[in-house]
Parts: sequence; C-alpha cells; structure tokens
Amino acid sequence: MEWLPPSFVFQLPEWIAPRLEKIPPFPTDTERMQFVIDLARENVARRTGGPFAAAVFDFSGAFISAGVNLVVPEQNSVLHAEIVALLFAHQRVKSYSLDALGCDLYSSCDPCAMCLGATFWSGVRRLLCGAPREAATEAGFDEGPVFPQSYQYLQDRGVTVVRRLCEPQAREVFRLYRQLDGEIYNGHPPLHPPDSPQ
Amino acid sequence: MEWLPPSFVFQLPEWIAPRLEKIPPFPTDTERMQFVIDLARENVARRTGGPFAAAVFDFSGAFISAGVNLVVPEQNSVLHAEIVALLFAHQRVKSYSLDALGCDLYSSCDPCAMCLGATFWSGVRRLLCGAPREAATEAGFDEGPVFPQSYQYLQDRGVTVVRRLCEPQAREVFRLYRQLDGEIYNGHPPLHPPDSPQ
Repeated sequence: MEWLPPSFVFQLPEWIAPRLEKIPPFPTDTERMQFVIDLARENVARRTGGPFAAAVFDFSGAFISAGVNLVVPEQNSVLHAEIVALLFAHQRVKSYSLDALGCDLYSSCDPCAMCLGATFWSGVRRLLCGAPREAATEAGFDEGPVFPQSYQYLQDRGVTVVRRLCEPQAREVFRLYRQLDGEIYNGHPPLHPPDSPQ
Repeated sequence: MEWLPPSFVFQLPEWIAPRLEKIPPFPTDTERMQFVIDLARENVARRTGGPFAAAVFDFSGAFISAGVNLVVPEQNSVLHAEIVALLFAHQRVKSYSLDALGCDLYSSCDPCAMCLGATFWSGVRRLLCGAPREAATEAGFDEGPVFPQSYQYLQDRGVTVVRRLCEPQAREVFRLYRQLDGEIYNGHPPLHPPDSPQ
C-alpha cells in the first residue's frame, strides 16, 4: 500500500449542484432549515449518504455553503454534513473564521461531538438544529460525548444555540432512512470486550 | 461571490512528502510519538501551520497517514492535524472505519473537542497524546468543550486513551511557536458582548 500524493479531495453528489444555484436569500430561520431538511431527505432518497444535511447562511440570509453526510459514499468517517458545509464555507469566504460575515450554521439534526466542536472553531454566531439527538440515536446513530455543558460552553462564548427547529420534518428524514434500510455506520464498533485489559 | 464547484481539495505542505516516504515500522509508541512531534516542530519552523501534528499507525507499527495543522495556510478552521491525518487514513484504507487494521491515532497534543469526536468515529482502538491540554491553552489556544467524561465516553466504548507521552518534547513545540510569534487563530473571537440578548 503506497502513500497517496499528499492532497485530499472529495465531491458533493452530482444532484446537489443544480440545487445550490441561484438560491434566493431566505429571510427566516424556518425557511433556511426547511432548505437543509430538503437536502437531507434528498440525500437519503437518492442513497448518496446518511440522513443529515447542513448549510451556512450569512446574517442577511444569503446562502454561503451546504453539505450532506458523505461517510459511506466517500468511505470517510470525518465527512459529516456539518463538517462538509463548514469546509466549503471557509473555502468560499477565504477565511478560517466566518465571524466577519455573521454566519449561522443550520443542521438537520443536533450535532455529534465532532461537529459541535467544529461549530465552535468556525466562528459562526448561531447554531440551529432540526431533529434532537434522540431522533438520531433512536435511528441507530451514536452522537458521541456531547453533554449539556458542551452546549453551555458554546453559549458562554457567544454562540447562540437553537434546537428543535422544524422538528417534525427533521425527524421524518430518519424514518425515511430506516424505511429504505439505510446503512447505520456507527463509527466505532466495539473492538475490545468490556472486561479486556486497557 | 459565486458558488464554487462542489469539490473540495487541500494539500499537505510540500516539505512533508519526502518525510513520509519509506517510513520503517516503528515498534514502540515512543518512536511513533517522536515522529509526530518532529512533524509538529517542522510545521512550526517552516511556518506552514499551527503547532500540532498527528499520525495513524496500524497495530504492527506500520505507518498509515499523517497530518499537520493547516488552519492558517488553508484558511480553514476544520483542518486540525488529527482531522487531516484521519481524512488521509480513511482515503488510504478505503474504509470509513480504521478498526479492521487495528489503527491508533497519535497526536502531539490532547485533542480539541472536534478532534476528540473525530477520533471516536474513526474506529481507532487507541488515542495517544503528547502535550497536555494545558500546554495548548497556555500558548493561547482554546481546546473547546472537552471534559473528563468526554475521555470516559471513549474509554467506555473501547478506545484506550494514553496521555502525556513524550510530554517534554511535545511541550517544546509550543515554546518554539511562541518564540517565532506564531499566529493564535482562536476559532471564535467573541462576537456578542456577554450581556447581549441570546
């Protein structure tokens, strides 16, 4: 197995490009979240990834970037929807902080531990979530070490968190995923039996 | 500002490619961590990113992938060393889980909240860290919402965590970074005054 050239590339599914052209500014949080949930649903229906999507909008409601979960198609545990959306947002605004544009991150579900941390570093002023954590865990996804004080940490540092926005529609995406027998790609199958030496 | 083509690409610094050729298996954790700390030091000395590096080795000590912090050069808050190393590791083994190879992640410093979460999803069996969290915070870096129960969560699910491996050498990298006036790119400058409405 050779070391690959030291560059990394991934792509969004082909169906998404036309959906991201000429997006009008969405004046309300509800419209932005509905847009995100639609992407999540389409990602499931077209079988191009997990039941999660995210997008970044600036303070005026102008669209900056979007992401869908690509773990299975890209064979990469890092490529959660929020990570994908943030990677593109930084690429587009050419800055490692989105604070200058007053950006907000919309996610179709409460973030996992990785994505909650990524939200914090990205410089967004608000994190808005659709389905609650329990909807993901009920569907078989672990969300990792996220605790009430994780959200408190963000809020204490100026990141406003809004949860359960468009919750019924956001939950519907998980039902569709189960209905279509979508893969549950829990990152960490147990490798050691609980009583093995550490 | 136009939407970029829906592909994302980044590169490791040019100096790293020759360093990643023909790496012999390192039989001990100390040798693997020393390799990682050398990468972090070189990333600082060459001014190609922050004072952090990471690498993935398989159960036999064979090298899988490496990453250095690229936040400033790539203008992207997501590109921490561990994220970079894991993205490449998945690319190389062509799987969203590294568990089949019995991989371990070596990081020159305790992981931030994002990277701790990413470690969990990656399927590594062990996380080994060099400098403690305090070394990063003393240098001016926030580490985000990581709590003792965050590590416990990983360990309860079979991920062994080893900290303060080669600590003195790992701490030295932060001293060099300060000495060279390296940029402190704290992800989230305060956007709202503490008394602003949430």
